[in-house]
Amino acid sequence: MPGTNDRFDGKRVLADLNALRAIGAYRTGVHKPTFSEPHLRSLDWLAARLPEAELVAAIDGIGNVFGTSAKAGPKLLAGSHLESQNHAGWLDGPLGVIYALEAARVINPDPGIHGAVEVASWCDEEGHFGSFLGSRSYAGAVSEADIDAARDRSGDRTLRQALQDAGFAGRPRVTAEAGRHIGYLEAHIEQGDTLESSGLKVGIVTSIVGIWQYRITFTGAQNHAGTTRMAVRKDAGLALARFCVAIDDSFPALCGPRTVWTTGRITLDPGAPSVIPGSAEMLFQIRDDNPAVIERLEQQLRRMAAEVTAQGRSAVQVERIRTGVPATMTSAFQDAIEAASAACAGGKSIRMPSGAGHDAQVLATIMPAAMLFVPSIGGISHHWSENTDDADIVTGAEVFVETCRRLLAG
Amino acid sequence: MPGTNDRFDGKRVLADLNALRAIGAYRTGVHKPTFSEPHLRSLDWLAARLPEAELVAAIDGIGNVFGTSAKAGPKLLAGSHLESQNHAGWLDGPLGVIYALEAARVINPDPGIHGAVEVASWCDEEGHFGSFLGSRSYAGAVSEADIDAARDRSGDRTLRQALQDAGFAGRPRVTAEAGRHIGYLEAHIEQGDTLESSGLKVGIVTSIVGIWQYRITFTGAQNHAGTTRMAVRKDAGLALARFCVAIDDSFPALCGPRTVWTTGRITLDPGAPSVIPGSAEMLFQIRDDNPAVIERLEQQLRRMAAEVTAQGRSAVQVERIRTGVPATMTSAFQDAIEAASAACAGGKSIRMPSGAGHDAQVLATIMPAAMLFVPSIGGISHHWSENTDDADIVTGAEVFVETCRRLLAG
Repeated sequence: MPGTNDRFDGKRVLADLNALRAIGAYRTGVHKPTFSEPHLRSLDWLAARLPEAELVAAIDGIGNVFGTSAKAGPKLLAGSHLESQNHAGWLDGPLGVIYALEAARVINPDPGIHGAVEVASWCDEEGHFGSFLGSRSYAGAVSEADIDAARDRSGDRTLRQALQDAGFAGRPRVTAEAGRHIGYLEAHIEQGDTLESSGLKVGIVTSIVGIWQYRITFTGAQNHAGTTRMAVRKDAGLALARFCVAIDDSFPALCGPRTVWTTGRITLDPGAPSVIPGSAEMLFQIRDDNPAVIERLEQQLRRMAAEVTAQGRSAVQVERIRTGVPATMTSAFQDAIEAASAACAGGKSIRMPSGAGHDAQVLATIMPAAMLFVPSIGGISHHWSENTDDADIVTGAEVFVETCRRLLAG
Repeated sequence: MPGTNDRFDGKRVLADLNALRAIGAYRTGVHKPTFSEPHLRSLDWLAARLPEAELVAAIDGIGNVFGTSAKAGPKLLAGSHLESQNHAGWLDGPLGVIYALEAARVINPDPGIHGAVEVASWCDEEGHFGSFLGSRSYAGAVSEADIDAARDRSGDRTLRQALQDAGFAGRPRVTAEAGRHIGYLEAHIEQGDTLESSGLKVGIVTSIVGIWQYRITFTGAQNHAGTTRMAVRKDAGLALARFCVAIDDSFPALCGPRTVWTTGRITLDPGAPSVIPGSAEMLFQIRDDNPAVIERLEQQLRRMAAEVTAQGRSAVQVERIRTGVPATMTSAFQDAIEAASAACAGGKSIRMPSGAGHDAQVLATIMPAAMLFVPSIGGISHHWSENTDDADIVTGAEVFVETCRRLLAG
């Protein structure tokens, strides 16, 4: 539909993304943990931009930024997040926020378009304090008790303290107004290499995989690393290492075609070079969009844990600490993205599941929701060197704006 | 030699050890990291006791406590340490200090004995800030630059700051006076199960094993735990786990009869559940009294590292960060301990190497040195539940005092 996007401005999109990159810059990426100073400045930066799109800006009691429109007609909610993983990429989050802002800037002032795009920046998608805190708060799934209990990853700072320090304590938390939005649209970098390796420009997300997370603990016997003979040791760290290897050896025969699993953190206690670890812990994650696959893999974990425990050296406990909820993206919205890709990206799109979790999976529990991906160079993600070609960023933005237009047109 | 130990007081030994246990108590053990408040209080406690043994007390610029005698005749140096590992046992260190104090209390006031026992409490044997800082300072092996560079295990506190806070900054450090002592004697809990499992009461240490320490780093590629297919991952944490298992599988065929090896700490970077670790590090230690065995094992480490690196997923680097120096105990001193055991412990002694490092290995570089062990219940060490039967503590003390008497008699 050439000609309809006249006021779309790709240079403005790139300039905005670079402005956000300059706040909390780390090498070519950013370091903006949730409620860090650069994260808070990024929220303020967005709030100051929203009026350009005829939106009223507000930051609520969990740190969500909202741009609300008074325009008549249907309203589409769009956004993503502004905090980052530690020392991570500049586009993971900001891309979707700036695409939403650009769509609102193009669509909202246009009297020829019935309806508006409202913008949201969801707080803590990256999980420094919890799991999708901001979008889950909006969906009504976060209680005050949940907030009381939440701490940052180090355990040093409570969420209450962080909210207090940020100046958000005492503000109400905004929750979804039933029927206000026709749905939710989010753009994101792919974070994998599917688009790049196929020469495609747009990924149309069909579903978001669920994340199952486990705390696996090993209890042996702490002892002196010099005086305890190898034969009598109960080394919890060694038991953990063998468990990691056993997972990697046994899962391929049991998993689905797209299952992934990761041991992201290992802690040996007490963690001193001259002490045999008496206990050890690993954080283990599995992702898939098929709960039946997870069921098989979890059974394998528990079987292996029982076997190791029965051998008598280390007792292994498998505790599920997060249960995945795979989310299906709304089919009509997928069709709109595909049509917009045909119009603005030469049809270089593909339907694909998302291996990463996104706020869209939370929004999908309360309204129609969809996502589009742009290519990631080398598939690199959650690292400061994450990047996307400028031309691909602009193409993705154009497809996003066109998708919003089509969704509002119904 | 019954009758010669009349003034030896086993109850006093137990009472003193329990008094030290009450300072910084943790369950049935203690928590006294170097320069912590309970550690400093323990040093003051000892300094206050030394005059009972006709010793002049002083604490020097590295936190060593010395009890110096003005008595004529030969002088024997005896002692151990007062700080503990974190949440560790009550006897690891204090036992040797109180045995030395008791020997000095029995021998020094006795005009019938020519010579005296001088007492030392060496600072930081447990290595919170360095390696045998106190005894190495006394041996002249710690420079001011070493002190400038030292930090605690967390890296948060410099040794300079800790010395300042303790009130030791600016004091001179005492170094060994050539020819002052006929030698050094140290008692310690065995920290293993050799004595207990054989029904013996005294271990006569023949040598102290060396400790070789390695930092082994794995460099893969940090990426997103949901979007990166298993087939293309370069997971540094998994490479580390496989390396730990490979060590444990290959070392038994290459090691000596008493070699021990331990992975005490593992760190995955960035350590987040949703990020594939891009790098990982393990602290690895080997102990033996035979450098030729270590040479073989280190070659195996380097061979395995090269193999893994050649496979192209993770680059492995093996860096030796500590080189062991096995120490031989003075033969004539071993004979004196054996004779004292025959006199006071029904000859229930055995000659054995020490798998643990001790200040005696440092003192052995500047004077004749020896050690005696008492049994450890269940071989437990470096844990708060470490313990020794009261009767064994008293027997060991009696053997220790008798050994001092024999060494001074020449």
